[in-house]
Amino acid sequence: MNEFPQTERSTLKRLPKRGVYDRELVYQILDEGFVCHVSFVWDGQPFVIPTGYARAGDQLYIHGSQLSRMLRTLAQGIEVCIAVTLVDGLVLARSAFHHSLNYRSAVIFGRAAIVAERAPKLAALLAFSEQVLPGRWHDVREPTEAELKATTVLAVPLDEVSAKVRSGPPIDDEADYAMDVWAGVLPLKLAAGEPVSDPRLPETIPPPAYTASYRREKS
Amino acid sequence: MNEFPQTERSTLKRLPKRGVYDRELVYQILDEGFVCHVSFVWDGQPFVIPTGYARAGDQLYIHGSQLSRMLRTLAQGIEVCIAVTLVDGLVLARSAFHHSLNYRSAVIFGRAAIVAERAPKLAALLAFSEQVLPGRWHDVREPTEAELKATTVLAVPLDEVSAKVRSGPPIDDEADYAMDVWAGVLPLKLAAGEPVSDPRLPETIPPPAYTASYRREKS
Repeated sequence: MNEFPQTERSTLKRLPKRGVYDRELVYQILDEGFVCHVSFVWDGQPFVIPTGYARAGDQLYIHGSQLSRMLRTLAQGIEVCIAVTLVDGLVLARSAFHHSLNYRSAVIFGRAAIVAERAPKLAALLAFSEQVLPGRWHDVREPTEAELKATTVLAVPLDEVSAKVRSGPPIDDEADYAMDVWAGVLPLKLAAGEPVSDPRLPETIPPPAYTASYRREKS
Repeated sequence: MNEFPQTERSTLKRLPKRGVYDRELVYQILDEGFVCHVSFVWDGQPFVIPTGYARAGDQLYIHGSQLSRMLRTLAQGIEVCIAVTLVDGLVLARSAFHHSLNYRSAVIFGRAAIVAERAPKLAALLAFSEQVLPGRWHDVREPTEAELKATTVLAVPLDEVSAKVRSGPPIDDEADYAMDVWAGVLPLKLAAGEPVSDPRLPETIPPPAYTASYRREKS
C-alpha cells in the first residue's frame, strides 16, 4: 500500500493541497529528521515532549530510561500523536501577510507498544543509532544486558500518518509584485559544525569521516 | 520575578538537574527558536501541530488563518502545552548506551486567548516578523484591514514554563575511556544558505543584508 488512509483526525482541513499521504514521501520526511514531538493526554491535560526517534520499516521507535514518566505512560497503550518537522526556509514576500515558511512535517496517530524481546529491542537501538549517524554503531561498545534492561523501547505502527509540505517562492498579491523590495526564499537546514573532541580523548584519535561529511538531507 | 514557579506538571521528574526554571534562560531559548509544537486535547484525542511563534514580553503568540481549526479550538480557552526545541549537537560516546543529544527545550503550560484589538494584534504580527527576521517588517507592505481581519492571533501567558538543557561532552563509563574510538560532540545548528530570489523579482534588486548574515543564535 502506497497511500496512508485519510482518517477524520489525519486529514488536513485547511490548505488540503499541502497534504501528503504518500507513504514514500512521508518516510523521506521521517528519515531526514531524528527529533520528534510526542503528545499525549494524562489526567485530561495535554503534554508534548521532544525526543529522538527512529523509523524502521512501518514502525516509529522512541526510547529512553525505564524510569521515564512519558514512556511508562505511553506504554499503557493510550493514544499518542507524534510530529516530525523539518524547516526548509523563510519565505519572504512583498507583504507582511504573505510571509511564510517552507517546511515538511509529518503527524502520526496511534498507540505505542513496548518492544520487550531482546532481538527486536537491539534492532531498534541499532536503528536509533543509524537514524542519527549511520556507521556509528559499529565503532562503539554495544549495550550490555543491564543497559538493555534499563532501556525502554516503544514502537508506534505507521498506520495513520499525514504530512504537510510547503515549498517554493512566495505567492504575493498581484499588485505587490511591482514593489521595489527583495522577495524570495532564504533556505535553512540543520548543519554540522566542526567536531569537538571529548576533553579526555587522546590527541592521537582523529574524528571519523562520518562527522566531517554529516548532512541530514538524503541524496 | 526571575524564576518560574515549579508546578506538578511543569517539574522535571527524570534528570531534575537538567531542569531550568530561570525566566531569562527560558526566554533565551524561546527567542532563538521560531517554530513550536502546539499540543491540545480534542474529543479526548491528543493533537500536536507545528507552527511559528513569537515571544514578546511575558506572552507567547501564535497566529494563522481565522479558518484554522487549531486556532478556533484553542480560542475556546482549553488547556494547551507548547514545546520549543533547539538541537545543539550529537553527543557521541564510546558506548551506544551513553550516546545522547545536546539540546535546549522549553515547555509551556497554559490557556490561549484571542488578541482581538487592532493595536496589540498589529504589535503581535510585528513581533512574529521580528522573531523570524529582524528588520524585515519595515521593508514590506503592512497588513490591510482585511488581512488583519483574516488573521487570528492567540496569546499564551508565560506563567508556567520549564526548560531542559543538556550540554557538554559525553559521559562514559570509566572503563570505556580506554577504548580506541573517537568521542565528542558534533555541533548542529539551523543554518541559512544562499538566498533564492523570487522568479518574478527584477534582477536589479539584490538580497538585503539581513539574508546574508542570518543566524538564529544571539551573540
